Amino acid sequence: MSDQADWSLAPAAEIAAAVSAGRVGARAVTEAALARIGRLDPRVRAFTDFLPERALARADALDAARAGGQAPGPLAGVPFAVKNLFDIAGLPTRAGSKINRGREPAARDAALIRRLEAAGAVLLGGLNMGEYAYDFTGENVHDGDTHNPHDLTRMSGGSSGGSGGAVAAGFVPLALGSDTNGSIRVPSAFCGCFGLKPTYGRLSRAGSFPFVGSLDHVGPMARSARDLALAYDAMLGLDPDDPAQADRPAEPAGPSLEAGIGSLRIAVAGGYFARMGEPDAFAAVAAVARALGAERGIEIPEAARARAAAYLITAAEGATLHLERLRARPRDFDPAVRDRLIAGAMIPAPVIERAQRFRRWYRDAVGALFREVDVILAPATPCRAPRGGQKTFVLDGVELPVRANVGLYTQPISFIGLPVVAVPVRLDEGLPLGVQVIAAPWREDVALRVAHHLERAGVARAPVATLD
Amino acid sequence: MSDQADWSLAPAAEIAAAVSAGRVGARAVTEAALARIGRLDPRVRAFTDFLPERALARADALDAARAGGQAPGPLAGVPFAVKNLFDIAGLPTRAGSKINRGREPAARDAALIRRLEAAGAVLLGGLNMGEYAYDFTGENVHDGDTHNPHDLTRMSGGSSGGSGGAVAAGFVPLALGSDTNGSIRVPSAFCGCFGLKPTYGRLSRAGSFPFVGSLDHVGPMARSARDLALAYDAMLGLDPDDPAQADRPAEPAGPSLEAGIGSLRIAVAGGYFARMGEPDAFAAVAAVARALGAERGIEIPEAARARAAAYLITAAEGATLHLERLRARPRDFDPAVRDRLIAGAMIPAPVIERAQRFRRWYRDAVGALFREVDVILAPATPCRAPRGGQKTFVLDGVELPVRANVGLYTQPISFIGLPVVAVPVRLDEGLPLGVQVIAAPWREDVALRVAHHLERAGVARAPVATLD
Repeated sequence: MSDQADWSLAPAAEIAAAVSAGRVGARAVTEAALARIGRLDPRVRAFTDFLPERALARADALDAARAGGQAPGPLAGVPFAVKNLFDIAGLPTRAGSKINRGREPAARDAALIRRLEAAGAVLLGGLNMGEYAYDFTGENVHDGDTHNPHDLTRMSGGSSGGSGGAVAAGFVPLALGSDTNGSIRVPSAFCGCFGLKPTYGRLSRAGSFPFVGSLDHVGPMARSARDLALAYDAMLGLDPDDPAQADRPAEPAGPSLEAGIGSLRIAVAGGYFARMGEPDAFAAVAAVARALGAERGIEIPEAARARAAAYLITAAEGATLHLERLRARPRDFDPAVRDRLIAGAMIPAPVIERAQRFRRWYRDAVGALFREVDVILAPATPCRAPRGGQKTFVLDGVELPVRANVGLYTQPISFIGLPVVAVPVRLDEGLPLGVQVIAAPWREDVALRVAHHLERAGVARAPVATLD
Repeated sequence: MSDQADWSLAPAAEIAAAVSAGRVGARAVTEAALARIGRLDPRVRAFTDFLPERALARADALDAARAGGQAPGPLAGVPFAVKNLFDIAGLPTRAGSKINRGREPAARDAALIRRLEAAGAVLLGGLNMGEYAYDFTGENVHDGDTHNPHDLTRMSGGSSGGSGGAVAAGFVPLALGSDTNGSIRVPSAFCGCFGLKPTYGRLSRAGSFPFVGSLDHVGPMARSARDLALAYDAMLGLDPDDPAQADRPAEPAGPSLEAGIGSLRIAVAGGYFARMGEPDAFAAVAAVARALGAERGIEIPEAARARAAAYLITAAEGATLHLERLRARPRDFDPAVRDRLIAGAMIPAPVIERAQRFRRWYRDAVGALFREVDVILAPATPCRAPRGGQKTFVLDGVELPVRANVGLYTQPISFIGLPVVAVPVRLDEGLPLGVQVIAAPWREDVALRVAHHLERAGVARAPVATLD
């Protein structure tokens, strides 16, 4: 590749290889990405905090270091951007809200930004998101909605909508998002990206604005499983600043990506995960299962109760976090977020206590399934991206609110912190669909290996949207 | 000693020594205790489940074993009884309630009963208590109130009222109680006994009916610090049946009981713990401080908030436990208990979440005080035992409900699971008062050593009530 436009669409792995080999400078790659964003983001609205000066200074420093003989990192020159709940030094961390804009600017970058930049990546800015991450649509009343790059009349999905939009639009090969009930997996499905929601406690949340402490995960989104693995490997490792991070052995995902899936026992989730959705959602799962030779089914017990419990805990813990803001500045919230938080503030404590007890039972029950299988497949969303502003949809003959039901299949999985790669599947020329590749706790490497296999087999793919 | 009456009033240590040496048989000691209970308990109402046959069979077996050359245990022939929330094989575990009487009889004795009997003790029966342990008075609408043996018109205190009553009345030298917010320390103070509330997680709760999982403690009550230590040492040790028990090193208390207090840094709690109570309550603390040469004061920070938080967590967790019973059989509850549980069922979850967060802060803040001191002294109750049926009392000029305020000084201590010995102090010929000897976590031995010193110095004493 030689011209700017091409570099802005290249995968992270290819960029890093070219920059490391000196075939292109980090500055040229960064300029290409900045130019594409400047030209097309007004239509997508992925970025809320665009940082060309910081990015170019960083790219120049990388180029100078390489010229000086320093070894470039595994993400050398790779442009990336982050959901705006990650601290970026010098900016208030808005977390999709109006209220947070009055906060002190962050003193330093979030832990994962520092890790990615330590590996050679170049931060281009902060990305749009649903207010306080309590969202599945990618809509934001303060910053405008992130539109789906594959069809600008459609939702990007949320709450990491800017991350999904930026990756699908070819603005960056890599973005960070967060996922409490599906906020990485839903926009990955709607925008047709790969998204990794790691095991709960795996990656450092230090320097990110929280939502629900016991459910929040952070992770990468990209256009290939290899790029996800590259980013994941660069972000691994214990961080003393995140007390919730677990000290568990981590298998880097990159080295075993090509190991194949021959030894893996793969099952398709039945019951709850085979109901409610549109036929296309199950067709996508079936296509993935076929490509993996997965013939067995498996029942995840009490998934409906798990979703209900995740709902309740989310609303109550979210309300706990925002209580003072709800009292002091109710009118500065997105009404759709505020009203759910106020409802959450009134959930009786015994209801939450019972939800937590059920959660312990459910964690053990689902954990036991992984003695029989290595991977479980399930739809990521019940349908393709709804239209922007659409309030209801019909699932299985019943009209339901969109916001509340897009996470039907993601909530029961994140509720117990299982690692998942959402893989993008295209059944036709229409919008993409997503399939959840769910692995046993701490086996992100397995989920990434399966995603890579699906990509090689041509079943999963994440083309850049044709915006021009 | 030779006749029955004398043996029924002897300390546990003396009984065990005499039975071990063959100076008296376990049967004779048991018969003496049973006779006293049969004669006097109709006036006290300490027992709800009186088990003479079981006790005599057990005493005979002990005597036979000793005759056969088996070594008697450290509690050889010591009669004891337990709050009726401990499982007793063959009986439904009523926990002070009407509803629980319909339960299946317990298949086996609670863990601590088995440990005490393994040490040679003889169980005489189950003891009266406030319904479901949600009580500070010792009153029970189903079984009748336990009366204070030192003045039958006065409250025994609760919820381990039967335990305090049985020990003070000379029915048994040793009883087991439970303490969630003060339920061992309050009846110990009102009835003039020694009571040990161990560190949270120290003694096994297996086979006891719960109230508030994160606050429940079980422990012994007796008429001397030595007897408390004997019982405590016999009950130590991890029990696989209690998952909440902590695996922490335990210092047996007996061996160091005589070691003196010379090396201990002892302080008197000021601020919150020096307000609200009647002058007598502080005079008792002052007498104890004088005997210990304790001149320094110490401030336990945010004790009022700690009490409030303990209240909220108790009501909400208690409601969680009893939710089905509240729905199905509201009229079979004591109305005073039911109404607090119903209120607890409606406390919003964020309120409890914040109380739990405060609790973590408070645990650390108070824990830090024990770098400066080894023991903290505080009143056990704000006054002597109120009259039976008394609904309000005046503290610091304000009329307050008795039930809700007796635990003023105990709640902030159990809230973070600190070990406490309540020592009985007699300022005059009137009713006793109690002082809390509070030690660092896991240092029950220190609190017991101080209690023993106070007994030796004549400041703490627990004479049997003159009921005849």
